[in-house]
This record gives sequence, structure tokens and C-alpha cells, in this order.
Amino acid sequence: MLTAYANQINQAISTALQPYGAPASLYHPVSYLFEGGGKRVRGIMVGLSCQAVGGDPQDVLPAAVAVELLHGFTLIHDDIMDSSPIRRGRPTVHMKWSENVAILSGDVMMGIAITELHSCCHISTDPLAVIKELGKGLIEVCEGQALDMELAIQPDVSVTQYFNMIEKKTARLLETACAIGGMLGNGSAAELNALTLFGRSVGIAFQVQDDVLDLIGAPDFGKKLGGDIEEGKRTWMMLEAKRRLADNQLVKSFFDDNGLGSDDVPEMIQLLHTNGILDEAQQIVRNHTQTAYLQLDVLPSNQGSRLLRELAETLITRTI
Amino acid sequence: MLTAYANQINQAISTALQPYGAPASLYHPVSYLFEGGGKRVRGIMVGLSCQAVGGDPQDVLPAAVAVELLHGFTLIHDDIMDSSPIRRGRPTVHMKWSENVAILSGDVMMGIAITELHSCCHISTDPLAVIKELGKGLIEVCEGQALDMELAIQPDVSVTQYFNMIEKKTARLLETACAIGGMLGNGSAAELNALTLFGRSVGIAFQVQDDVLDLIGAPDFGKKLGGDIEEGKRTWMMLEAKRRLADNQLVKSFFDDNGLGSDDVPEMIQLLHTNGILDEAQQIVRNHTQTAYLQLDVLPSNQGSRLLRELAETLITRTI
Repeated sequence: MLTAYANQINQAISTALQPYGAPASLYHPVSYLFEGGGKRVRGIMVGLSCQAVGGDPQDVLPAAVAVELLHGFTLIHDDIMDSSPIRRGRPTVHMKWSENVAILSGDVMMGIAITELHSCCHISTDPLAVIKELGKGLIEVCEGQALDMELAIQPDVSVTQYFNMIEKKTARLLETACAIGGMLGNGSAAELNALTLFGRSVGIAFQVQDDVLDLIGAPDFGKKLGGDIEEGKRTWMMLEAKRRLADNQLVKSFFDDNGLGSDDVPEMIQLLHTNGILDEAQQIVRNHTQTAYLQLDVLPSNQGSRLLRELAETLITRTI
Repeated sequence: MLTAYANQINQAISTALQPYGAPASLYHPVSYLFEGGGKRVRGIMVGLSCQAVGGDPQDVLPAAVAVELLHGFTLIHDDIMDSSPIRRGRPTVHMKWSENVAILSGDVMMGIAITELHSCCHISTDPLAVIKELGKGLIEVCEGQALDMELAIQPDVSVTQYFNMIEKKTARLLETACAIGGMLGNGSAAELNALTLFGRSVGIAFQVQDDVLDLIGAPDFGKKLGGDIEEGKRTWMMLEAKRRLADNQLVKSFFDDNGLGSDDVPEMIQLLHTNGILDEAQQIVRNHTQTAYLQLDVLPSNQGSRLLRELAETLITRTI
């Protein structure tokens, strides 16, 4: 079911992009990004959230496309800012073309997103609230990325600041997806509230799980474990290590030198393990997952809400 | 009157940005851009277009802010792409901070623009059409910038391609401003059509006038005349020179070397003058201005339409 809807979203993305062929330097990178794959998690969440409150996921495909466009725009721009050369096994847009092309192609995706969302939001009893949600999502995703860049160079980062950052940078778009889907299905205030918290909780759990998998996940395509430690990424686990093990030489080096050499990575993973920090991170994942599932009890028990649970399980119990 | 409304827009911009203080790295550049000045022509056009069809310009201040935000976003991103170090006498955002900051601050302005427009578009009988206009404007401005970059490296550029480019890059935002203002004032289809064509015609006239002033304008703050010729900018005049004077050595050099040395600039200006190309460019400005004024006849004769004419005159008859 989830795969079938993802395929429908892919089809809808192709259809939505059809009118936008020229100038090729603007639009080719947009189709390139989508051809590179992606699970369409956010688009699926739009459809399932709509279905969960009694709407038809077929009616909200343009909104699913809009949210995927918003997501794609953040990927292209974030890849420039993070100087990432590779995404999904292929050169990122700014590497394949140029930074200028990547800036502009990202920009135009927001325009198409507005147009797509516009084309289906009349099915909501409050279409303007749906539009507002898109604007709010865009604003907060930008705030999340800005916070991420600020925290990367700030000497002391609190756990609260960290969670505020991932709530915006990672979780906000899942929240936006669920909120927009629920609004288009004309869910009640309580249902919308539950869907919003569901999306946010899944997003936070997903990010912390991602950080854990970087250290102890199954090897994927020869991906090196502990890359985040080498890069100096300030995950919750590293912030917690600093708080608890401030005098540890390895922890000190990590923060002083913005990362460790690859030789020191296994020792750092061991340190996080021995001190129970890895376990606690997994507990955080479970807690947020639990919060997410509890929200689903507020929704009618139907295929939409069942599939939302299935989607969350798939995301959070993955091992790679 | 125009200045008073511009001041109200500036006040409304400040109010709109008030909730957006943190993260400072994201929002400081946004206020920095607006503090740098600007005539708020696009915002004024929103208000006057609304007034011209019988609406109250006070009601559409958030929409004026939205269009100014959209404009500001294109300035910040275009400055990165064009590697412009200075805007309005101050360092551009990417020079003062960084390209990453400029990308992200531009992005967030679109989010605030959506939010602002959302807050007042309910006064239209078709609020979603107003939203759609913003999306369409954003898309076409991006297309214009992409075309500009494509044409800069393309061996042969036709006059049609050139006008298509400036219609999107320069004129589209004025068109968007007039269309949104007219829609919010609930103008008739004929009025909206007239306002749209008014904005587009003023935009084209403005751009060609800008190119003429670069060659023969009054000296402004020691600005050097003919900078466009040094930079190799393919204005309508240079494209026309190529078409008519293909064998001229100076014209050849301009296109082969992407610009001329400053010593050759006076001779090129003289060449454009002698061959009547400068005169014809000024005729193009007059023609489009005339088209713009004719549109105003379709509108009720009131303060709004009178001020639209005054605004167009100010823009097009400027000498610096």
C-alpha cells in the first residue's frame, strides 16, 4: 500500500513538472533530483493523514507533490550549505551543475509547490489555513537549518537547543505534511493536533535513530560507521557525553578539534556505549515513537491511521 | 502621496519582521536588506492597483510587504549569482555574511511572504487566485534569472529572446504587484487585464530605460557611464548593434571578448548614437510607456489610477 501510494506520488510529480521544461538550466536539475529516488515519506504522510481523518488520499496528490517539492528545495539548498558532494549515490545539483543553478532551481521549486498546493486546497473548508501551513513550514525549516549552522560553531550547546534545532530542521516537514493532509481531509481540531504531534514525534525519533545508526547501524554500501564523529557532528549523544564526561580527553578533543580522527572513532563509540549514552539515545527514540503512536489513538481506526503507524515503524525500526 | 505610502510600507515591513528575531544569523540579513533603502515601487503598485479598482490601499499593506519580500529575496539570491559586492552603497548580504547565510535568508523571506499575503488575501472574493499569482510570479522571476544567465553565454541571442527574458526577470514582479493589488481590490476581469499589462509595460520600459541611462545618464555618485559595455551586458542596444553592424570590429570585440576595455566605451556609445540605436531604444521606452498609460484608461479615473501614472512617469523619465 505504501509503495503503491509512493508510486502515485512519483507519477504526480512527473505530471506536475511537465509544464516546466524551459529554461532547461532551471528545470533539468529539478527532475534530476526526483529521478535520484527518495522514499516520498512526506508525500505519503500527506495522503495518509488525509485518509486517517476520513478524506481520500487521491484528492491530495498535488499537496503531496507540494510537500515533496518543499523537501526537495531544502535538500538542494542544504547540500550547497553543507558542501555535500553526493546525494543518493549521485552528484548533488551544485556539484553536477553549479551553485548558481542549485540556488535558482531550489527557488523555483517553492513556486511550483505553491502552485500545486493551490490547485487542491479548495477541498479544505479553510483553504487559506493550508497555505499558511506551507509558509510556516518553510520558515521553520529555514530556522532549523540556520540553528544547525549556528550550533556547529557555538562553544556550548544545550540539549534543549539541540532538540529545538532538530524539531525544526528534521521534524518540521513531517509535521507540515501531516497537518496539511489532515486539514485537506477536514479533520477536527483534536485530530489535527494529534496528526501534528504525530509528525513531530516521528521526526524527532527518526533523527535520533539516524544518529544512532551512524554509530552502530548495519553496514550499508560500505558506509563507514561513525562518520558523524569524524565530522564533529554534535548529536544528542555527543552533547550528553560532554555534559557527563567533561574531563574525558577524547570528548574534549572531539569538541576542541570539531571531530576525531578515524582511529579514535571506535573508542568514542565504546565510550558512549559503556556510559549508557547509546542506550539512552535508543530510549529517546522509543519514547518519541510511543508519543507518536499514542496520537494515532485520537484518530479514527481506519486504513489511514493503520498505515501511518506502519510508516512510522518502517522509519524508526530500520537498521541501515 | 507616493512617499507617504512608501513610508507606510516600510513601517509594515518592520512590523511584519518583528516576530522573526531568532535565529539572528537568519533574520538579521533580512532587516539589513530593507534598512538599505529601496523605493518600494512594487509595494506601492500593490496599494495603488487596489485603490485604482476601488479598494483601500490600507487593507493591502501586508500584500505590499509580501511583494517587497519576494523582491528582496530575488535581490539577495541574484546578488550571489551575479557576484555583486555592493547594493545600494553597502556590501551585499553574501559579502557581509556568507553565501550560505544569503541563500537561507533569501529562502526564509519567501516563507514570510506567503504568511503575509495569506493574512490579507481573504478580502478578495477569490483568495486562492491571489496565492496562485504569488507562485506564478516566483516561478517566472526564477525563469527570467535563468534565461539571463543562459543568454549571457549563448553565442546568438535574438531580440525576442531578450524581451522574453526582461519580461520575466524585470517586468514580472511589477506585473505580479499590479495583479495582486487589483485582485485584492476585487477588480473586474478587464481591470485586472489592464493592470497586468500596465505593470508589464512599465517593467519593460523601465529596463530599457535603465540600459539607456547606463550609457547617457546623468552622472550619479561618480558612477561610470557605460559600465554595461565594459561588463559585456547584452542589452537590446548591443543585440541590435550586432544585427545591424555585424562587421564592425568594435561590435565583434564586444561579443567575442564579453565586453570592451574602458578606453573603447566612448567609441561604442558614439557608434550606437550615430546609427540611431540609442534613439530607437528611447523610442522603445516611449512605446511601452504609451502602452502602459493606455491601460490606465480602462480603469476608473480616481486617485489610484492617477498615482499609478505618476509612479510610471517617475520611473521612466528619471535621468539617473
